[in-house]
Amino acid sequence: MIKVGIVGGSGYTGVELLRILSAHPEVRLTTITARGDNGTKVADMFPSLRGIVDLAFVAPEESNLKDCDVVFFATPHGVAMSHAKELLDAGVKIIDLAADFRLKDTAEFEKWYGMPHACPDILSEAVYGLVEVNREAIKKARVVGLAGCYPTSVQLGFAPLLTQGKALVNESALIADCKSGVSGAGRRAAVGTLFPESSDNFHAYGVKGHRHLPEIVQGLKALTGNTRDIGLTFVPHLTPMIRGIHSTLYATLTPEARDIDFQALYENHYRNDPFVDVMPAGSHPETRSVRASNYLRIAVHRPGNSDTLVILVVEDNLVKGAAGQGVQSMNLMFGLDETTGLKQVPVLP
Amino acid sequence: MIKVGIVGGSGYTGVELLRILSAHPEVRLTTITARGDNGTKVADMFPSLRGIVDLAFVAPEESNLKDCDVVFFATPHGVAMSHAKELLDAGVKIIDLAADFRLKDTAEFEKWYGMPHACPDILSEAVYGLVEVNREAIKKARVVGLAGCYPTSVQLGFAPLLTQGKALVNESALIADCKSGVSGAGRRAAVGTLFPESSDNFHAYGVKGHRHLPEIVQGLKALTGNTRDIGLTFVPHLTPMIRGIHSTLYATLTPEARDIDFQALYENHYRNDPFVDVMPAGSHPETRSVRASNYLRIAVHRPGNSDTLVILVVEDNLVKGAAGQGVQSMNLMFGLDETTGLKQVPVLP
Amino acid sequence: MIKVGIVGGSGYTGVELLRILSAHPEVRLTTITARGDNGTKVADMFPSLRGIVDLAFVAPEESNLKDCDVVFFATPHGVAMSHAKELLDAGVKIIDLAADFRLKDTAEFEKWYGMPHACPDILSEAVYGLVEVNREAIKKARVVGLAGCYPTSVQLGFAPLLTQGKALVNESALIADCKSGVSGAGRRAAVGTLFPESSDNFHAYGVKGHRHLPEIVQGLKALTGNTRDIGLTFVPHLTPMIRGIHSTLYATLTPEARDIDFQALYENHYRNDPFVDVMPAGSHPETRSVRASNYLRIAVHRPGNSDTLVILVVEDNLVKGAAGQGVQSMNLMFGLDETTGLKQVPVLP
Amino acid sequence: MIKVGIVGGSGYTGVELLRILSAHPEVRLTTITARGDNGTKVADMFPSLRGIVDLAFVAPEESNLKDCDVVFFATPHGVAMSHAKELLDAGVKIIDLAADFRLKDTAEFEKWYGMPHACPDILSEAVYGLVEVNREAIKKARVVGLAGCYPTSVQLGFAPLLTQGKALVNESALIADCKSGVSGAGRRAAVGTLFPESSDNFHAYGVKGHRHLPEIVQGLKALTGNTRDIGLTFVPHLTPMIRGIHSTLYATLTPEARDIDFQALYENHYRNDPFVDVMPAGSHPETRSVRASNYLRIAVHRPGNSDTLVILVVEDNLVKGAAGQGVQSMNLMFGLDETTGLKQVPVLP
Repeated sequence: MIKVGIVGGSGYTGVELLRILSAHPEVRLTTITARGDNGTKVADMFPSLRGIVDLAFVAPEESNLKDCDVVFFATPHGVAMSHAKELLDAGVKIIDLAADFRLKDTAEFEKWYGMPHACPDILSEAVYGLVEVNREAIKKARVVGLAGCYPTSVQLGFAPLLTQGKALVNESALIADCKSGVSGAGRRAAVGTLFPESSDNFHAYGVKGHRHLPEIVQGLKALTGNTRDIGLTFVPHLTPMIRGIHSTLYATLTPEARDIDFQALYENHYRNDPFVDVMPAGSHPETRSVRASNYLRIAVHRPGNSDTLVILVVEDNLVKGAAGQGVQSMNLMFGLDETTGLKQVPVLP
Repeated sequence: MIKVGIVGGSGYTGVELLRILSAHPEVRLTTITARGDNGTKVADMFPSLRGIVDLAFVAPEESNLKDCDVVFFATPHGVAMSHAKELLDAGVKIIDLAADFRLKDTAEFEKWYGMPHACPDILSEAVYGLVEVNREAIKKARVVGLAGCYPTSVQLGFAPLLTQGKALVNESALIADCKSGVSGAGRRAAVGTLFPESSDNFHAYGVKGHRHLPEIVQGLKALTGNTRDIGLTFVPHLTPMIRGIHSTLYATLTPEARDIDFQALYENHYRNDPFVDVMPAGSHPETRSVRASNYLRIAVHRPGNSDTLVILVVEDNLVKGAAGQGVQSMNLMFGLDETTGLKQVPVLP
Repeated sequence: MIKVGIVGGSGYTGVELLRILSAHPEVRLTTITARGDNGTKVADMFPSLRGIVDLAFVAPEESNLKDCDVVFFATPHGVAMSHAKELLDAGVKIIDLAADFRLKDTAEFEKWYGMPHACPDILSEAVYGLVEVNREAIKKARVVGLAGCYPTSVQLGFAPLLTQGKALVNESALIADCKSGVSGAGRRAAVGTLFPESSDNFHAYGVKGHRHLPEIVQGLKALTGNTRDIGLTFVPHLTPMIRGIHSTLYATLTPEARDIDFQALYENHYRNDPFVDVMPAGSHPETRSVRASNYLRIAVHRPGNSDTLVILVVEDNLVKGAAGQGVQSMNLMFGLDETTGLKQVPVLP
Repeated sequence: MIKVGIVGGSGYTGVELLRILSAHPEVRLTTITARGDNGTKVADMFPSLRGIVDLAFVAPEESNLKDCDVVFFATPHGVAMSHAKELLDAGVKIIDLAADFRLKDTAEFEKWYGMPHACPDILSEAVYGLVEVNREAIKKARVVGLAGCYPTSVQLGFAPLLTQGKALVNESALIADCKSGVSGAGRRAAVGTLFPESSDNFHAYGVKGHRHLPEIVQGLKALTGNTRDIGLTFVPHLTPMIRGIHSTLYATLTPEARDIDFQALYENHYRNDPFVDVMPAGSHPETRSVRASNYLRIAVHRPGNSDTLVILVVEDNLVKGAAGQGVQSMNLMFGLDETTGLKQVPVLP
């Protein structure tokens, strides 16, 4: 049994980790921390876990974590990197759901997150946690910086186009119009995500610049083998639903790509990925079709046979976009089948 | 493996059966029917089941069902009773999620459902499917008429009070103020449950008389050993949420009951029921704490130490109020532990 | 033109006052305050008011308010009473949307609100702002303590029963099962009312005791001419909608009341109240039927001709339960028709 | 007073017309029809209108409509054109909220709506009802084919770019990623827009081709003075909210347009339009900022100073996208100020 610790168990990605890991056949949850809630029973904060998780929150001190085989950080940015060295020295693997180990360029990290990076050496060994792209590297990783929720959907949506050796689309003018449920904003007191503010309402945000933009661009560029530059317009929107991300991606075909069968291209690209579902031509995937599951579904359209390709991608931001992807990575890091404990059927309606 | 058929697989209770049964370790789904959708692949109608359920809908003819060990009817009222005799004769057990085998009095059935009962003899052998009340009888049943969604929450909420030999509350003036998510109205085209009608809106319905009223009264009376009459005011309300029932129950204490420790009474009553959770004193159970799970949670209050007892009950109407309760019953009918395949962790947020 | 000031213009009742008063034909908005937002233009905080309200927030100092004819306090408890004396001395009338001038018993105020009352003398002259009950007194008032949102619906729902000289129902065991939209919790950062917490969820709260309980009991007793005691069980619930309160009231008929025509009783009681609508027998009022309007609708039921009377009441908690009732009171205090500026048609869907 | 008739008063645009027109100072509602509901009182179907609209539905026969000065058709496609000639002959003006008088090319109409056009001659005189583009023509029109909900937001969002004589953006590759509330699907029984299907869910639809596409293309081309061709990718999405459209528009700058101040361009373009609000640079308009009002708000972004322009547009689909635009047109047709009866303040929260 893998001994698992969770730092930051009181947020949405934390409680989602608890939901998944408490039913994982190869995991024993040993330590859960939450700042300011030491001593509180997990099930008192989340009655959904009554009779399922019997632990209490402890302080996020390393002494409480060093006996784990792996620790998930479901914390704000900056926490994982401050604990990384001591845990690695104790032989504990690290999976960070925040941004500490995503951006390879520390200057970029500092620019977007407003703090210097605490451990550039560890950052340089960290593996970017997007399984379908980095599966082999994740198997060998000691530190995984999990892909963000938006970046997962955008990268997996564009990947079959960008990994073909030559450019199939105008890679300097990609567009990602993304819509997220409100749980993406996290479980912290804020006016903007109150029910009366978010319900029956829709708006864009961060059009000027969003922290996920440099992560996505870095990832898309990596998909080209770092051989070509990427220009991306990324517009996230807040949508009145709890879970789910729907990314609508636009790309302009290059002249030589006009005869490609993109449906076949996508199906072929993902034929061995158990959690990526390329839907039949003409489909409109719904976010609820992946609700509370680790699946991500894609549909490829070329309306009016024009040169604009439209790719629709849905995922559950808390599962494939966070906790589920973390468990999928953990499975690989410990030699398990990547689907172990991740076969929850989507909840519909 | 138990060979299972589902009649009416395109409604909400049908697709919920599919979600649960497709992951049940002792079940093989063999037959799924849906009127008018013969030949359609289940996963084409419900993409959430892509890669999970590989069957297509077939016609609801008995020849398609006779090889099953058990058939679930997730159909409108009147369907199960028209198939019951032939299936029983073929050795197939029946679990009806509709009302055909709930009301023991055929005149009551005819009054509330507007049709004569097709098989009073089978009705008389049918067992009322409320596991926590009828566990032993369900184990031996050939036909189970599952408790309705509201009736489940109201009966389990009142049960500890009514089963004590003498009346602890004024049983002629019970009140059940119940709130249901919209999935309770089923998956059929209707104006009243459109999103723009049901969202950001709240109203009562059926105050004059609702089909669940006679079922609840029959059940509450049975809880007294059919020794005392029941008077119940039942007011259901439609609530802008997908899943969940919250029943707020009111009962007036008899003078001799004033010194009882009701918290202890409830905890003791349900100490051996794996799916009923009596929460700590002072709790306010949330519907989401049981979302997509078979749990039902109860809290007992006595505000201001007055003579009015307030019992709060939450369940997922599609699970404990329908499909989950059906699987729980099936487990018992086939000698399995009643929790087999039903340990889904509630989905929060 | 009445010169109007608003203290606390950045909350939900504040912005609702702005919506209504900005279109009121006899009002000129002169001063709007919001703690911590001095200098911010109102329309920058609430773009819905762009081109409609041209003011900026100023500090909540009395010097900014003394030129007003009337000041609305849309603030937390405790603010209005700290400004009352100075404003009254300056000839400014006061309408408080919080609780400072509701409870006549200062000990009760201190018990429920955790602070001593700052001006018991002004409290004793203050009029309780429930127009349909206190119309004449409001006309002459200098200080109005507006009825709370729940109390408005419960008192107007029970009023026709309690004002008849003799008890028609068991007044020691009244029940109010109330459901409120989330805007009732106010516009302040809090985890419990975040969208992902409140959406697709339903729960009771404050069953042990809620601040509106003593206010309602005081009001119901006043309806009997303070001749009879009231026993009330009050259970509020949080409902996933923005606006609206639905109160479901239960009362047990006294034997001598069994032959009364309650439909006629209610219609007659409210025949001269322009904002109270007694709906036809058998109706189930919807909260959206009063959305964004000052109407309150009532339906009276006696299910199964039993002795339990069920009264359904809907209102918009921010209008008839707060800002609208405030403007209705202001109209009376300044000799206007009470409907002036309050004829907004409910918004449906 | 203008005598107004409404054909199709039982749908969402019909009841919205009733809400607005019942409070319009220059209008007298004389006739309201709804197929299958003759004799029903309007306020019995929509209790929100109790005490406000006193009419009953009558049959949609011309004899009931010929005394009107103007008739609104809030009906499915095909109805208005079948009544147009008789009404015009009787001197009645026509405002159609459906598509009968939108597409100038009858072949296009037949292709997208599956029926031949009943009166091409009337179509040729009909004016396209988008006030900010066609104000002068609408003043003189006998027949107005109102712009659709999506087309209004897309055309007004692109208009300042397309009306400049020379192309500022690549007009052959425009993108409109549009999100609509569910009321846009109308008030008719359908499974796909049930609350349990649409809530907590998000998906695109009609990517292959949507009826609004040819209308938008026709309109955008007209904005160029019919001098240049338009290529548009239009992807509509269904969003879990009642009202509101958010259109996110993308356009690629031509090299010579790189130095233009687009904020100034937009502000200048709409400086005389009372219902179009160009928000300050950097804004993210919310749909609720126009809820239940006739305003449309626009923000212009150029993220990272790249060549991709992003325009955000919000409107209430039932007001500026339908009923409000209809009343705005009517005001012009009858010589009134276009804002008459349309100054409802947006409802927030």
